[in-house]
Amino acid sequence: MDYKPYISVVNDFPIEGIRFKDITSLMSDGAIYKKAMDEIAEYAKEKQVDVIVGPEARGFIVGCPVAYTLGLGFVPVRKEGKLPREVIKVDYGLEYGKDVLTMHKDAIKPGQKVLITDDLLATGGTIEATIKLVEELGGIVVGIAFMIELTYLDGRKKLSSYDIFTLTQY
Amino acid sequence: MDYKPYISVVNDFPIEGIRFKDITSLMSDGAIYKKAMDEIAEYAKEKQVDVIVGPEARGFIVGCPVAYTLGLGFVPVRKEGKLPREVIKVDYGLEYGKDVLTMHKDAIKPGQKVLITDDLLATGGTIEATIKLVEELGGIVVGIAFMIELTYLDGRKKLSSYDIFTLTQY
Repeated sequence: MDYKPYISVVNDFPIEGIRFKDITSLMSDGAIYKKAMDEIAEYAKEKQVDVIVGPEARGFIVGCPVAYTLGLGFVPVRKEGKLPREVIKVDYGLEYGKDVLTMHKDAIKPGQKVLITDDLLATGGTIEATIKLVEELGGIVVGIAFMIELTYLDGRKKLSSYDIFTLTQY
Repeated sequence: MDYKPYISVVNDFPIEGIRFKDITSLMSDGAIYKKAMDEIAEYAKEKQVDVIVGPEARGFIVGCPVAYTLGLGFVPVRKEGKLPREVIKVDYGLEYGKDVLTMHKDAIKPGQKVLITDDLLATGGTIEATIKLVEELGGIVVGIAFMIELTYLDGRKKLSSYDIFTLTQY
């Protein structure tokens, strides 16, 4: 299925020169959003995933419906100060800045098969940080799923030891 | 169903004196998370909802699975600067601060029946702001669903002209 007609491309957002890929137009079409999530759930099933992990906030948009439909747990990865219990942390470089990501220390059990979800694979910085958190707790990243891949940013190279699934590429 | 055994209560988070209700422990149990979302989806069906709206980030955790299972669109309400296309804005007072919420201007069509979702009803400030955005675009708020209600903060009073559904109360 070609999802591109449902994705808005916004010039010069959030900074000049970026052609931002906006999934909110896709999500506003319930049938298309469902179809996209079903494709990612199918991938998760093949990978025999135990738990789904997604960075805020757009990782939730993908990961929560997939976790729901498969009856799996969902683990949020959040900015510092958002998760209330004991966390592990990682510094990371964003496409447009720097930040810290955190995950609850009890979120993953050693040996659990993890699917990481996000809306878009750009440079792969957020996901590289998320992988570090999962692996620090002993989780095994069996797959990473995105709605969109920006192939010209080479995020796949950074994540080359992992299996990556994307619905559409630019 | 009693969800309380799955909700963590964290003392003095994010500030002293607050007993924070943490849904991440509930979400990490896939069967329980699914059951909770199914109850909210059932409520949305009764209300004949056309579209689901949720404020970031925890509103996504509830709204996205419900939108997915009903084949409905999901509209994210986000902090300023996060949505790439033309937005409408509202100032609001949080339980612990002040902020601006935004929604894409084309997100709701006049007359659409809207369900608003969030994890927790506290003072109702975030939801009051979300209602303003929906109604500015001509949407009709037919219901508001939360996983948790803090009854002692009287959020229900602030939202008294709306139908409210909550899974568990403190």
